[in-house]
Amino acid sequence: MLPSSFLTELQSAAPSLTVLTAREDILPYGFDGTATLKGAAGAVVFPKNATDVASILRLSRAHRVPVVTRGSGTGLSGGSVPVPGCIVLCLVDMNRILEIDTKNLTLTAEPGVITQRIFDAADAVGLFYPPDPGSMKISTIGGNVAENAGGLRGLKYGVTRNYVMGLEVVLPDGSVAHLGNKCVKDVAGYNLRDLFIGSEGTLGVVTKVLLKLLPKPAARQTLLATYASMDAAAETVSAIIAEKIIPCTLEFLDQRTLRCVEAFAKVGLPTEAEALLLIETDGHPAAVADEALRIEAICARHQALAVRRAATAEEAVRLATARRSAFSALARLRPTTILEDATVPRSELAAMIRFINTVAQKHRVEVATFGHFGDGNLHPTFLTDERNHEEMHRVEAAMREIFDYALSLGGTITGEHGVGLAKKNFLHQQLGDSSFALLKTIKKALDPDGLMNPGKIFDLAENATTPSSAHAHGA
Amino acid sequence: MLPSSFLTELQSAAPSLTVLTAREDILPYGFDGTATLKGAAGAVVFPKNATDVASILRLSRAHRVPVVTRGSGTGLSGGSVPVPGCIVLCLVDMNRILEIDTKNLTLTAEPGVITQRIFDAADAVGLFYPPDPGSMKISTIGGNVAENAGGLRGLKYGVTRNYVMGLEVVLPDGSVAHLGNKCVKDVAGYNLRDLFIGSEGTLGVVTKVLLKLLPKPAARQTLLATYASMDAAAETVSAIIAEKIIPCTLEFLDQRTLRCVEAFAKVGLPTEAEALLLIETDGHPAAVADEALRIEAICARHQALAVRRAATAEEAVRLATARRSAFSALARLRPTTILEDATVPRSELAAMIRFINTVAQKHRVEVATFGHFGDGNLHPTFLTDERNHEEMHRVEAAMREIFDYALSLGGTITGEHGVGLAKKNFLHQQLGDSSFALLKTIKKALDPDGLMNPGKIFDLAENATTPSSAHAHGA
Repeated sequence: MLPSSFLTELQSAAPSLTVLTAREDILPYGFDGTATLKGAAGAVVFPKNATDVASILRLSRAHRVPVVTRGSGTGLSGGSVPVPGCIVLCLVDMNRILEIDTKNLTLTAEPGVITQRIFDAADAVGLFYPPDPGSMKISTIGGNVAENAGGLRGLKYGVTRNYVMGLEVVLPDGSVAHLGNKCVKDVAGYNLRDLFIGSEGTLGVVTKVLLKLLPKPAARQTLLATYASMDAAAETVSAIIAEKIIPCTLEFLDQRTLRCVEAFAKVGLPTEAEALLLIETDGHPAAVADEALRIEAICARHQALAVRRAATAEEAVRLATARRSAFSALARLRPTTILEDATVPRSELAAMIRFINTVAQKHRVEVATFGHFGDGNLHPTFLTDERNHEEMHRVEAAMREIFDYALSLGGTITGEHGVGLAKKNFLHQQLGDSSFALLKTIKKALDPDGLMNPGKIFDLAENATTPSSAHAHGA
Repeated sequence: MLPSSFLTELQSAAPSLTVLTAREDILPYGFDGTATLKGAAGAVVFPKNATDVASILRLSRAHRVPVVTRGSGTGLSGGSVPVPGCIVLCLVDMNRILEIDTKNLTLTAEPGVITQRIFDAADAVGLFYPPDPGSMKISTIGGNVAENAGGLRGLKYGVTRNYVMGLEVVLPDGSVAHLGNKCVKDVAGYNLRDLFIGSEGTLGVVTKVLLKLLPKPAARQTLLATYASMDAAAETVSAIIAEKIIPCTLEFLDQRTLRCVEAFAKVGLPTEAEALLLIETDGHPAAVADEALRIEAICARHQALAVRRAATAEEAVRLATARRSAFSALARLRPTTILEDATVPRSELAAMIRFINTVAQKHRVEVATFGHFGDGNLHPTFLTDERNHEEMHRVEAAMREIFDYALSLGGTITGEHGVGLAKKNFLHQQLGDSSFALLKTIKKALDPDGLMNPGKIFDLAENATTPSSAHAHGA
């Protein structure tokens, strides 16, 4: 429940603000893209600008009301799930592209702009915004920044962080900070911009994003390679990197995902294969032609059953779109779909995939795996039923083993989805005492009242328990 | 003066540590690459590993002795200049390259490794470490990380930050934190790695650096274009970017620098030109050939007097080396050389250069300008004499006007040299109250005793004076 005077004061501080409080109105703001994480806000508010956001934060601070910021709610770690007694700050009405600067190759947007619109706006002037999270047709750029979203082009082009040149941030006390600018080089003071990127709404509210754009690659080529074994596919990936080729995209689907995607998208994927690689190279036409030839040869040397080129740009788009549908396609199989994103150094991919399959068998759980092979970023996807507690226990046991193994290989519990609620019990183990303590120090310093998305990433109250004593896993 | 028991305890905590205390021994550790900033340490110590560093920091904390960390001392903002009563932690003995991982394209090094050695070690296995600060033959990678050093390839390849995947850091309390790893994607917790990069030794001591490497570009081509006016050169740069070409290097020399460099390096530069562009494109041979042709055409369209290609790889290296000698060449002209690095968005270059010349005339000071045009990163270099106080006042007045103007164009007071002592009086003005206050919040949280390189970047004691009341400028 919100303090009774809070909403009254909010309406008088920002009279034009849309505020939802009816149970049926706020229900849709109670969850994100995870299967099992839910919460209920006291109210959902829709600021129109940074001034609105500042008013809300100041008032929330005065009344000690927690603030959970969200965009489209496509997150996959529970980062935007409401916490008890909070207001949800929904930024979808701050949805203007403010500027495209073709001289400096930048785009300035409000946080509620849909990622796809950013891509399209850049594309329309011959420029390129590379980060392409799976949900880009509905996710917002603010959400992408909050989670440092990845995507299919990470191998060559990096992730959201690599394209954020500047941020306007409303701090917990309602003051507004500008971090970064249009300068390609700037070393004036600590880099706070990168601290806010990926901070999952726990340090402040991003109200403007300055993005870097690239020239649009002149050509691209998409290849499909099929394999009778996952090892051969993994070895192909290692060999491509070892030959110093960095494709734009290097995606992997296992047989279960492959069949599911084909049944869903019907693009003619070879469903008899054990594993499939979707490889895209882009750049200068001659470079693309060259790389495609070399990649074909590497695939052949590593026991590919077949290697096929997309004949047209349309076919390439169809294939990429089919790959993007993997999560939705898998979600049709069982009542509950839990998408993980354990990530390892590229060299450890084959070992990680073998381990996932062993663990799935051991715990008798259904796992389909796909992901961004070139980044070592895997999406082992559990197909289960949250109503079956016994099965869910096995799923959790399998997940824990997968995370433990990923960490033992020098990996991370989350490559691109964030920690949120879903991974917070694993974070201490990954970071170690000293780095974990640093996170809390930062949080306490920047959000001394602890009102910005509390309980996400870590619990401030949690003392330095031995990592292995953590257990319940939310997602 | 150091507390009397400090050195005794230090020797017993780390008996094998080299410690210099004699005045003549520590003199060389009293300055960096700036002209006019000097200080004297109580002692200079040479740790061999992170354990030594941790012992030193713990002891310094117990005795409240400030710690100034340094590498080769090539910095250009006074960042490693000793503060009163400090010890200097000189990391040059931690100089091993620990691993080159060709599967994950990474290199792990101790902070004292010379930047050029990193480049060479990568090059030897067909890989490429792009950041190339002007001082790379003597600067250390630890110093590059502390300052987030730039270089000549920033336009296409970015700066040091873009190649740091992980850090081992000894924190002020002597604990060791590991920030980052070999995963291409990792969103587990706040990004503290990027907070430490560019923090100029004020938050902790970097004891290990994990660097990302790239495949070595297959081809490169160097072009020289000369102009009768600086405007035409600046317009050429804008036109190249507008045509969506991102060269590897886009360097600029004005006539004064050009003549000086030619007198120093004798590589046949056309000294009659008002301005010279040194342009390098790299990548796939066909892409390079194409881009070189297009760049030549753009130069011609923008009134280049002549455009010439480096005939051989050796000639290209000679030209780049000559450009790198600009600072040394200019330093021969007058007793004191003050190298600045005001930086503006690329689109504002022509305006900035015109302004620098106007201001130099107005204050009757000698300024030669060169720099990384593609990054908007200029090096207006004051040729003066620090013993002439009247002239120095005019130099400072001119500098202030240049910084003010750069900021009015959306620029920064420092593109790649850092704030240190030299720029700290300008930082508040650039960042504004809110961001400036955030820096102090971070510093107080991470270094509560204020012992890590105190007084660099900002003074903790400084209250929120109006920026314009700041004045004395150190460099």
